Amino acid sequence: MLVVMKAQATPEQVQAVCEHIEQLGFRAHPLPGAQRTAIGITGNQGEVDRGNLEELAGVAEVIRVSKAYKLASRDVKEEDTVVRFAGTDAAIGGNGLAIIAGPCSIETRDQAFAIAEAVAASGAQFFRGGAYKPRTSPYAFQGLGLEALRIMAEIRERFGLRIVTEAIDNESLDLVAEWADVVQIGARNMQNFSLLKRAGRLRKPVLIKRGLSATLEEFLMAAEYVMSEGNYEVILCERGVRTFADHTRNTLDLSIIPAIQRLSHLPILVDPSHATGRRDSVLPMARAAVASGADGILVEVHDHPEKALSDGPQSIYPSQFAGMMNELEQIAPVVGRTLPRGIRVEARTGAAKG
Amino acid sequence: MLVVMKAQATPEQVQAVCEHIEQLGFRAHPLPGAQRTAIGITGNQGEVDRGNLEELAGVAEVIRVSKAYKLASRDVKEEDTVVRFAGTDAAIGGNGLAIIAGPCSIETRDQAFAIAEAVAASGAQFFRGGAYKPRTSPYAFQGLGLEALRIMAEIRERFGLRIVTEAIDNESLDLVAEWADVVQIGARNMQNFSLLKRAGRLRKPVLIKRGLSATLEEFLMAAEYVMSEGNYEVILCERGVRTFADHTRNTLDLSIIPAIQRLSHLPILVDPSHATGRRDSVLPMARAAVASGADGILVEVHDHPEKALSDGPQSIYPSQFAGMMNELEQIAPVVGRTLPRGIRVEARTGAAKG
Amino acid sequence: MLVVMKAQATPEQVQAVCEHIEQLGFRAHPLPGAQRTAIGITGNQGEVDRGNLEELAGVAEVIRVSKAYKLASRDVKEEDTVVRFAGTDAAIGGNGLAIIAGPCSIETRDQAFAIAEAVAASGAQFFRGGAYKPRTSPYAFQGLGLEALRIMAEIRERFGLRIVTEAIDNESLDLVAEWADVVQIGARNMQNFSLLKRAGRLRKPVLIKRGLSATLEEFLMAAEYVMSEGNYEVILCERGVRTFADHTRNTLDLSIIPAIQRLSHLPILVDPSHATGRRDSVLPMARAAVASGADGILVEVHDHPEKALSDGPQSIYPSQFAGMMNELEQIAPVVGRTLPRGIRVEARTGAAKG
Amino acid sequence: MLVVMKAQATPEQVQAVCEHIEQLGFRAHPLPGAQRTAIGITGNQGEVDRGNLEELAGVAEVIRVSKAYKLASRDVKEEDTVVRFAGTDAAIGGNGLAIIAGPCSIETRDQAFAIAEAVAASGAQFFRGGAYKPRTSPYAFQGLGLEALRIMAEIRERFGLRIVTEAIDNESLDLVAEWADVVQIGARNMQNFSLLKRAGRLRKPVLIKRGLSATLEEFLMAAEYVMSEGNYEVILCERGVRTFADHTRNTLDLSIIPAIQRLSHLPILVDPSHATGRRDSVLPMARAAVASGADGILVEVHDHPEKALSDGPQSIYPSQFAGMMNELEQIAPVVGRTLPRGIRVEARTGAAKG
Repeated sequence: MLVVMKAQATPEQVQAVCEHIEQLGFRAHPLPGAQRTAIGITGNQGEVDRGNLEELAGVAEVIRVSKAYKLASRDVKEEDTVVRFAGTDAAIGGNGLAIIAGPCSIETRDQAFAIAEAVAASGAQFFRGGAYKPRTSPYAFQGLGLEALRIMAEIRERFGLRIVTEAIDNESLDLVAEWADVVQIGARNMQNFSLLKRAGRLRKPVLIKRGLSATLEEFLMAAEYVMSEGNYEVILCERGVRTFADHTRNTLDLSIIPAIQRLSHLPILVDPSHATGRRDSVLPMARAAVASGADGILVEVHDHPEKALSDGPQSIYPSQFAGMMNELEQIAPVVGRTLPRGIRVEARTGAAKG
Repeated sequence: MLVVMKAQATPEQVQAVCEHIEQLGFRAHPLPGAQRTAIGITGNQGEVDRGNLEELAGVAEVIRVSKAYKLASRDVKEEDTVVRFAGTDAAIGGNGLAIIAGPCSIETRDQAFAIAEAVAASGAQFFRGGAYKPRTSPYAFQGLGLEALRIMAEIRERFGLRIVTEAIDNESLDLVAEWADVVQIGARNMQNFSLLKRAGRLRKPVLIKRGLSATLEEFLMAAEYVMSEGNYEVILCERGVRTFADHTRNTLDLSIIPAIQRLSHLPILVDPSHATGRRDSVLPMARAAVASGADGILVEVHDHPEKALSDGPQSIYPSQFAGMMNELEQIAPVVGRTLPRGIRVEARTGAAKG
Repeated sequence: MLVVMKAQATPEQVQAVCEHIEQLGFRAHPLPGAQRTAIGITGNQGEVDRGNLEELAGVAEVIRVSKAYKLASRDVKEEDTVVRFAGTDAAIGGNGLAIIAGPCSIETRDQAFAIAEAVAASGAQFFRGGAYKPRTSPYAFQGLGLEALRIMAEIRERFGLRIVTEAIDNESLDLVAEWADVVQIGARNMQNFSLLKRAGRLRKPVLIKRGLSATLEEFLMAAEYVMSEGNYEVILCERGVRTFADHTRNTLDLSIIPAIQRLSHLPILVDPSHATGRRDSVLPMARAAVASGADGILVEVHDHPEKALSDGPQSIYPSQFAGMMNELEQIAPVVGRTLPRGIRVEARTGAAKG
Repeated sequence: MLVVMKAQATPEQVQAVCEHIEQLGFRAHPLPGAQRTAIGITGNQGEVDRGNLEELAGVAEVIRVSKAYKLASRDVKEEDTVVRFAGTDAAIGGNGLAIIAGPCSIETRDQAFAIAEAVAASGAQFFRGGAYKPRTSPYAFQGLGLEALRIMAEIRERFGLRIVTEAIDNESLDLVAEWADVVQIGARNMQNFSLLKRAGRLRKPVLIKRGLSATLEEFLMAAEYVMSEGNYEVILCERGVRTFADHTRNTLDLSIIPAIQRLSHLPILVDPSHATGRRDSVLPMARAAVASGADGILVEVHDHPEKALSDGPQSIYPSQFAGMMNELEQIAPVVGRTLPRGIRVEARTGAAKG
């Protein structure tokens, strides 16, 4: 159910409608738009009686939303969601492309700083690095944890990059929310509903990666779990699905980009590194992602991928990243975008091999 | 790494080898076999020096295990694992087929008791019922929680059935471990490594359902996560994977049964209800599962599926369950099995429709 | 469209209705049933006017069939189709299980005779052997062609086995139809509509293998192509589909068996050899297939699989085949079947290893 | 096996080596390159003795090719294959992007001419239109056949467009080869080896669409079938594969583009229309295809898609096509390409809606 307020409704009227809804035992989600505010109603105890709602002051109309996802749906919020970061002009969604780059795992302070410097120099605004790693094997490197979070906080301080990193359980969620700017929920946890709900109670943006066999609806329902708890800053990320095809690690499904944008107002990024698992496919798929209309790219960069503790073969070199940025800058205008470049240092040349 | 003790090694010698391993910063997993004990070594800090180990008293040989899964592997433990339940002759693994039956969700005490009575009457030894439900939608029925656990504890008391139910997060894991006999980890949490590790610290059997797109190796690695924490009573369960096929909800992959049995000593069950999502496919697939060599069946039974709060269309009627038991009893001997029937009341007749 | 004739309608009346339909530019397919005859109407030039048809003598009613497949549908023919072979009691469909066994390819006369003798001795009624092989590589062994057909004709003469072999194009179709008893259309040709139509003009039974990514509807539409040309003796065969799973070559989808039987009257077999690609999975899947209700099994048997020119690793030994027959004989009664054994010689023992 | 000739080898020496190979019972495939000629050796009767070959005049070295595909491999021919069309500057492969556009089916002369005029006006160089349609249902519209071929020949005459159309069997193959410029083999026939071999005996370029569940290797092996018969003008086309995802008809697998280009010298196109099945996804995926490095686009255009006899929902309007061409023109330089525009008429504006 969705209550659409009149254009001239006052904040007090919006507030009163929300209180009325909560008194009925439901949850109210005020969603301000450019023209007027809508209020989503969620809760699993049946239907609200719409008659009473329509008589409240400031209410334009009450609409039944039939899709399984409500708060994530364009039916409820027509304008694109743009996630902004206070004190910076970095944003995810909107006209600018968001570029999130960094190593799979934070391995050492030196490694992290070297890569951060390189990606910042090429114009990235966001830095990614794994602190808590969900590994298929219990015997594999599981990440540096809090130490990695601290290193990334220093990187934010030093390079002005916003930090994106993954939480894998309650404990790491609280820590990541404390230290980072965006909390990532990985593909394997896309249907860890308990974790999603807890992320919904944070007041930090949440980036959800598509599960390996998630349908579009399940993907949006994962977002809905977060949003149903009151956190509306959700970012989606396509990272390949599992199919029979064996020339890449997963099969990148770029056709979900226009499909998501048709159905939802949430921003959607693409991770060409995990999708392909191959360095030589990352640039072509990054270009394709932007050309398909994605809101940005999440990409693994490593200065010595041959020594990486995880995912070396899919990490691109800093020089490749610089080249990618130049390519994306040229493609962006075709899809009505720009490539904002954060602290932009001149792209270094001649560095590593491609 | 695997330390194979001599047949005549004493418990003290086994103990001494374990202590030696732990002092080196690794974890020792003593795995008693019919002939002799093996000790698995796990840990993610490099390789143990085998020279010293081989000189310890009672050690026959030290073997390098190359598979990603070690404790779950037949290389490490040749005999089938049989999970037994103190004070009963119920078991999972071994010659008897394990039959786990009950409703998708515990809805009311009356509903649960009626179904429990019926499945017990037909010879089931285990009762399943959802207390905590991982639902794709945050607005769907999420289970009765602790109340459901209490109802199932009463059912155990009354009918002598062992209780199997799902845990979905830390909180429910602790409660399920307290109230139930087997802790189920659902398909969506098969790679929730944090939850798996926590389950590994329990001393209750853990039933892991195969993820929707899990490979055989990933499935065994999920078991390895539990086992690496010291809990060796792990039960696997095939429940269908996600494919393009649309005549069933998922595609039941029975060919994983002989493959698992070749590689691992862990018991493996089949859930034909979630695999197919269709009542009329449950019996054929239950028969096929037993014929393929599975260690048992996990099946949804409901006396009024048309009113079920979840998964009604795939729940079979008690009368169908009784018929299924008769069919499985006939197939069992072909694969060298028997169908032990717990409290066995005469199968009631004429009840519901089939 | 389907014209249902009255129970007491005469052959002349059926004939008259068919002629009327053909005069309208459609095709009439008389389908005799136990109680009465139905006449399927096909053609792609729009709808028949049912008013006139209903007034013809002997017509009970005219029914619109909404499914894409018509002649293959149970809506049009309620009773199971049983394909019989003149002069023998061999049949596919009906109460008896059909067992089709033999090598992947006919390699030499001696090899073919040795295997034929062994499978006949264990009770098979049908012999399979590739004469024309659809190979992924143009450089791989493509089959002995006509020479293989001649060898199999001798085998029919000598052992009384009915011959099943694959046609891959127009030329081989005509030859196979001339020399064999059942014409097989392989998985790769399941949507070779031109070949299917040509097979529909034969008067030999046609066995269609499910394509690697065929949905149930596409599978039945392949049958419909054959039937729409007037050949109603179509046999379906599940042989595994392509998925992400890598523990078997394909993923055997046994849940299609009850689904097909619900929707269609055509018999459906299972090929556990191509489905799994592994000798040690063939017997478990053969048992599972029969337990799931399949009408029979198509299995590869080779006396020296290590020397086979194709598919050695999935071929079972004659002694395993004998054991399989004994197992299937025990499972058959559970699903209301028997295992007719053709010329039945006593199962030889001690032969090869399992 | 591959014979690499010396740079200065004469045509007579190449000829002599080929004759020597053929005398040994193999097939020789001379493959001229920029620097020197290589000669591929194929045949399924074992290995050539390389000693003798290396002694022939003009031979630089003899290399064993271990991949299953040989003639399609970059190991055998390093330079990109460019398919040219005599008397025009149209090409597939090379620096220019190939744009193939037109309706799914040729329905009437008027419809075909109207669409051809529109796509030519926007700069397409190739016209596609179905004459022979492989339809899942035997009762669906199967194409106008020869009449459609004649209409397309007129279109070539009138607009200077090269004609691409599908052959589905021997009969249509001969006709298509006679009337069209490129013979298309559809996804369902990608492993119709008999048809591929026959196409290999043509001297017309062959466009092969990837099968719905074809791996990269199987795709290249289909090309190898054509090439092994002596026709080296093979064009590949990605058109989506079958997965669990349901937001598009198939899942477009763009990551196969860089993978193919790494392994093979053959040009590869993308068909965003069949891949997605949705008009609103065609443009995003066409842009993504070019950005990923594809050699061109094959796209369905219809002036009245709501009345199309097949695939209306995925056909774009002529005005959308014009917009697409403008977008592709901007993306092309980023991947080192240009968008040659054939007869280029000014893009018409205001026509249909998007």
